[in-house]
Amino acid sequence: MGNWQARLDELGIEIPEPLPAGGLYSGVVQDAGLAYLSGIVAVEGMPLRLAYPGSLGEDLEVEEGQASARLTMLCLLGNLKGALGSLDRVERFVRLTGYVRAVPGFAQTPAVLDGASRLLLDIFGADLLPARTAIGVSALPGGASVEIDAVVRLVAS
Amino acid sequence: MGNWQARLDELGIEIPEPLPAGGLYSGVVQDAGLAYLSGIVAVEGMPLRLAYPGSLGEDLEVEEGQASARLTMLCLLGNLKGALGSLDRVERFVRLTGYVRAVPGFAQTPAVLDGASRLLLDIFGADLLPARTAIGVSALPGGASVEIDAVVRLVAS
Amino acid sequence: MGNWQARLDELGIEIPEPLPAGGLYSGVVQDAGLAYLSGIVAVEGMPLRLAYPGSLGEDLEVEEGQASARLTMLCLLGNLKGALGSLDRVERFVRLTGYVRAVPGFAQTPAVLDGASRLLLDIFGADLLPARTAIGVSALPGGASVEIDAVVRLVAS
Repeated sequence: MGNWQARLDELGIEIPEPLPAGGLYSGVVQDAGLAYLSGIVAVEGMPLRLAYPGSLGEDLEVEEGQASARLTMLCLLGNLKGALGSLDRVERFVRLTGYVRAVPGFAQTPAVLDGASRLLLDIFGADLLPARTAIGVSALPGGASVEIDAVVRLVAS
Repeated sequence: MGNWQARLDELGIEIPEPLPAGGLYSGVVQDAGLAYLSGIVAVEGMPLRLAYPGSLGEDLEVEEGQASARLTMLCLLGNLKGALGSLDRVERFVRLTGYVRAVPGFAQTPAVLDGASRLLLDIFGADLLPARTAIGVSALPGGASVEIDAVVRLVAS
Repeated sequence: MGNWQARLDELGIEIPEPLPAGGLYSGVVQDAGLAYLSGIVAVEGMPLRLAYPGSLGEDLEVEEGQASARLTMLCLLGNLKGALGSLDRVERFVRLTGYVRAVPGFAQTPAVLDGASRLLLDIFGADLLPARTAIGVSALPGGASVEIDAVVRLVAS
């Protein structure tokens, strides 16, 4: 078992509550020791509202995109914790796909998604970083700027 | 084993024949008890023709997008049945990624994909719904409005 | 074990060196006998430079897109070989997702990605072809025209 909850306390990072599903799907599916996390977008506040709406290369700078990616990842960890009870059950991140809403030709999708990866790096370290794909797309749920899904290997219980 | 074929009869839903591949790939790959389904678009008729071409937010209303997503899912179930012999071998849906062709900023990709999810819900029930990602993209094969791929857990044989 | 290295020699295909990661992620993650390959774009030369930049339907013809997809796949095989030591450890290709940068409405993403699939077909044969998804997107890393990620089943060692 990892000791990630202690690491989060050390970093002063608070994992948010899991999100209600935004449609007809399962937020997290566990299958054969993997957790498949539905794609989500960054939300915050109470009541929850979309954070960092807009398009890279038009409404948002790269730094804002990174903040959006980081918050999206944080929300994803919230969903994962909600499903597992504790993030200590994370063995490693296997896959992460990041979709960045961007104007045609925007070239810096990897830099934007590094905002999400850096959060994982800070908490879990470089060895647990997932394989990643970074794509620029025209439209995301609710007008969000970043959407991320992931596959996570769980510690055998 | 599930009893999904009986459920389909009850609902009066007819599963279409599997589709010929639209390129150099395998329609369905089985690996370690999972079926990986290639992304497909909605077709119908004899000879097969593309159904619901166009772009959300321009050519198609959300309701038409939902019909497109539903038919795409039905075709995907056709491919799955073709590979498995019977849909009774479905244990659960693990992942579904839905790509919706849409104008920049179109915000309702989850609502569109609920057209596909509702078909799964009606047949298999809420507990078997997959983790899902809903993306808006600029271009899909043949000018289609929706493309869906999926990963399905099979009953051990 | 496959004999793919010999097949590559026979075809006169040279597998490139693995690429440095273009961000905070793992190029290849091995988990439970699968290799998850991060999405990459086509590069060539020394120093490495982006090959085939641009957008299908605007800057590039379908044939150029196919060459881009083929080179992307070749670079992906380079990453895989770098992680495994030898491509002889490939049992089969399970999944491939191809993202084609294209103008809205571009309909030939499957034809473009057949450039990548044909390379796999030539080396590994039709039975090992993956399930595939072909998407048209507005923006890719560095202004590339094609990005591909994949999941590969490895021979048990």
